[in-house]
Amino acid sequence: MPKPTRIVILGGGFAGVYTAKHLIRLATPEHPVEVHIVNRENYMVFQPMLPEVISGSVGVADTVSPIRRIVPRALLHMRDVEKVDLKAKAVTCSPGFRPRPLTLEYDHLAISLGNVTDFRGTTGLAEHAKPFKTLGDALALRNHVIHVLEEADTERDPALRRQMLTFVVAGGGFSGVEVIAELHDFVRRAVRAYPHIAQDECRFVLLHSRERILPEIDESLALYAQDLLRDRGIELMLNTRLAAATAEHAILKDGTRLPTKTLVATVPSNPNPVVEAIDLPKDRGTLRVDGFLRVQGYDHVWALGDCALVPLPDSTQDQPHYAPPTAQHAIREAALCAQNIHATIRGKTLKPFTFGGLGSLAALGHRRGVAQLLGLKVAGFPAWVLWRFIYWTKMPGLECKLRVGLRWFLDLFFPPELVQLRVGRSSGVANEHFEPGQNVFEQGDLGDRVYIIISGKAQVLRKRPDGSGEDAIATLGPGQYFGEMALLHRVPRNATVRCVEPLNVLSIEKGDFKALVTHLDEMRSGFERTAAQRAQPATTPTPS
Amino acid sequence: MPKPTRIVILGGGFAGVYTAKHLIRLATPEHPVEVHIVNRENYMVFQPMLPEVISGSVGVADTVSPIRRIVPRALLHMRDVEKVDLKAKAVTCSPGFRPRPLTLEYDHLAISLGNVTDFRGTTGLAEHAKPFKTLGDALALRNHVIHVLEEADTERDPALRRQMLTFVVAGGGFSGVEVIAELHDFVRRAVRAYPHIAQDECRFVLLHSRERILPEIDESLALYAQDLLRDRGIELMLNTRLAAATAEHAILKDGTRLPTKTLVATVPSNPNPVVEAIDLPKDRGTLRVDGFLRVQGYDHVWALGDCALVPLPDSTQDQPHYAPPTAQHAIREAALCAQNIHATIRGKTLKPFTFGGLGSLAALGHRRGVAQLLGLKVAGFPAWVLWRFIYWTKMPGLECKLRVGLRWFLDLFFPPELVQLRVGRSSGVANEHFEPGQNVFEQGDLGDRVYIIISGKAQVLRKRPDGSGEDAIATLGPGQYFGEMALLHRVPRNATVRCVEPLNVLSIEKGDFKALVTHLDEMRSGFERTAAQRAQPATTPTPS
Repeated sequence: MPKPTRIVILGGGFAGVYTAKHLIRLATPEHPVEVHIVNRENYMVFQPMLPEVISGSVGVADTVSPIRRIVPRALLHMRDVEKVDLKAKAVTCSPGFRPRPLTLEYDHLAISLGNVTDFRGTTGLAEHAKPFKTLGDALALRNHVIHVLEEADTERDPALRRQMLTFVVAGGGFSGVEVIAELHDFVRRAVRAYPHIAQDECRFVLLHSRERILPEIDESLALYAQDLLRDRGIELMLNTRLAAATAEHAILKDGTRLPTKTLVATVPSNPNPVVEAIDLPKDRGTLRVDGFLRVQGYDHVWALGDCALVPLPDSTQDQPHYAPPTAQHAIREAALCAQNIHATIRGKTLKPFTFGGLGSLAALGHRRGVAQLLGLKVAGFPAWVLWRFIYWTKMPGLECKLRVGLRWFLDLFFPPELVQLRVGRSSGVANEHFEPGQNVFEQGDLGDRVYIIISGKAQVLRKRPDGSGEDAIATLGPGQYFGEMALLHRVPRNATVRCVEPLNVLSIEKGDFKALVTHLDEMRSGFERTAAQRAQPATTPTPS
Repeated sequence: MPKPTRIVILGGGFAGVYTAKHLIRLATPEHPVEVHIVNRENYMVFQPMLPEVISGSVGVADTVSPIRRIVPRALLHMRDVEKVDLKAKAVTCSPGFRPRPLTLEYDHLAISLGNVTDFRGTTGLAEHAKPFKTLGDALALRNHVIHVLEEADTERDPALRRQMLTFVVAGGGFSGVEVIAELHDFVRRAVRAYPHIAQDECRFVLLHSRERILPEIDESLALYAQDLLRDRGIELMLNTRLAAATAEHAILKDGTRLPTKTLVATVPSNPNPVVEAIDLPKDRGTLRVDGFLRVQGYDHVWALGDCALVPLPDSTQDQPHYAPPTAQHAIREAALCAQNIHATIRGKTLKPFTFGGLGSLAALGHRRGVAQLLGLKVAGFPAWVLWRFIYWTKMPGLECKLRVGLRWFLDLFFPPELVQLRVGRSSGVANEHFEPGQNVFEQGDLGDRVYIIISGKAQVLRKRPDGSGEDAIATLGPGQYFGEMALLHRVPRNATVRCVEPLNVLSIEKGDFKALVTHLDEMRSGFERTAAQRAQPATTPTPS
């Protein structure tokens, strides 16, 4: 029996999983293959359905399919890619339970790692904006929204209520529009179960950097979508963009501060850092391939999906045209990539990529949508039905189809489900960003985090006992920490800490900080010195 | 209109939620009530279904119901209870988004906080055993099992495979038996999707401290259950108990070490720490109430459910009998508590608790069960049908019933779902326990955690370049740390660290440790000193 050709596929999205499927399908006893997929998760996300996780109109696990159910004969490695050695033809993966890396040698390598959400570049975004790309993101957003509603229902401060009930989405492409529409639908329906929240207290804002939303589709459809969203009470802020974010605000480029606890950013995605690290020809981080999907200069390295620049047939040197980053293109690229790998193995002629695209679909919530298919434009209810039908037929597997179908059916009759699935405790060490004038905490607050300044400056202020104002008692800068009184016992903060210069801090949960201080000699000694210094002013009577 | 009587209920299990429901139902315009529920989650867990979350035969959210859907007119506060002031008749709750505590004053207080899993007392259990009490626990266990299967499918070391495929459950009561049965069913069915795992590689062990499992039911039924589980290949280890746990083993009291990555402990639960902190009469942490559910010495403080010792009618001074901690009793106690609170408001006579219990049911997996109902004993398939039917009718709400019914139906035709829902990153700071002889890590391992010794001793060993053995180069004790080389870059560990005396460590994720060292002056200076000292021996050529 001939030795199988070993193909390693990096990434388990549509591109990677369907490449594996076709590779196995095209194999023959004379030309066997051994297909490996390296993916961090053991499932493939059905991206178009992801926004429906927010409202729970599909179940959490219904938007994903286990990879080994789609391609039972591929070998799945649930790992991160650590290194690609193009000379040795080997991929090193992160260790699993056993702390040794896993090395996979290949005859052919297919790179389909997609892209990632990358919030670097906008101040405070990484710390305080919520991404919307993975199943985890969708679930986290859903839980956060339910948490906000629970809090708002018992909160009496009108400003805080307003802030909690303001939902901001940045980015007016497909993803941003579908997220704000789903958020709106969900909150509007859910609020009926919260007796102290009025419908008109809820505010929905969509930020977009251009003149109109949905740049992917025809202007008439986009304007239809805009009117539809506006009619529902969603505010569209066009020609603007996010300049910064804090835990309390979305800050626009003109300085406007929108007080909110929920800022979702669906900004253009960035290249995957693994792709960035591979020494292959790229254009702004995306891999350059020829029409056969081969990475330029290699006959056994292939790239496809969102991490590759796949030239379309009408592409010329002067006016290059590339396949857009959609599922329909990824699926066709996967079929072609598998064919061309088999052709290479058998010494046959390769075929070029020729798919022109079928069109675009967007769901707008409330059983409305817009669609542009094979030259036809459809809007409203028919477009929504088309949306559901087309994506439903594309879902992998009968079980998935049945489950989603049943959920959609039940959803017609029952109000949305409101379970807030708190999963794991919040991380011990977090990054936070504050803007000048903002309080990190106020005197009298309860608090259970300790803060370490990475950059910026903060003032420590204490109220005068006679209530006539406050005195600055210290200014803190990089390398200094504050809030450590919370370590001693649950006491209210004895001073206010206010940001003076844009402030980046590490914040650590009380328990974790205490454990470190107690058990790490290096930290305790330094900490005790500082505590002794700070104890002195506290002996003078101050309000606490 | 008369001022409503304010009743604060602590805890949102069956006891608390049903008390609220009955309180509101019994209110009249002359005797209005304002009912507050304080609960950490916004849902009530339907405990009997929890084991089915492991296999996914019910959906993640199907075992829980949003509290505000069950009692729409109660006021729900999604908080922890911080303090109960019996004199001021006020409950202080933890802060939410706004860092101020919430204080609720009450006319009547009903305490139904249940109990909690408490692993203190057995070495290493808190660090390495998995609890099974909350929805989060069930979901975490399911994800862990899928992770283990994914890893085992590609692992080649037979000892490590065996360890990964060994599943140990401690505790042979209802909960432990249902968990091992569900685990067994799920793994057996799921393994078919993992081409490199053989059925006979999987090992299932149930540990129980007594002569026979299921002490809650009749001996003949328990023996039937034992035979059934043994026939399926589940090992029952009776008359034994856990003495300790590490990340690699379950250690029994006779010193036996069972290598496993999955140790679930369903040990008897402990009183809720909030109940412990309240100054009310208690017996081993459980609140003492009279037959009317009043806490002894108070006419407006009530306790019920698992956190209360509710005397049964046949209880005498010498031979006290208390209601067992089951849902059927909690539900009846709730109805009575609400009646008696209303009777107190109206100056009427209180009624005592008289419910004798209907019986017990346990599911044994594979469509088998045991039941003891109204004196009747049923075993096998009929008991399983009875189990499903009785609990299904008890599920709150039509939607929940429909969803669970449909899932059960689909489950007849489709293999189990295998999505590993990774939720949030693993915590930055964790506690770990090691036993003498165990390696914390080995030279050559890849590692991304730094360890701080809390107690115990560890040896640092380095292999001789000629392969003739290893040399001890240092001994580390409390307050010292190791593994910090991982901070510099992804390099293999340059030495082995082996536990010499039982070792408790804090382990910190690389990124978090690095952030602290970089940004916290106190820590950096100490760290730099140590780094300088450790750098010296490293200048002599050593293998790395």
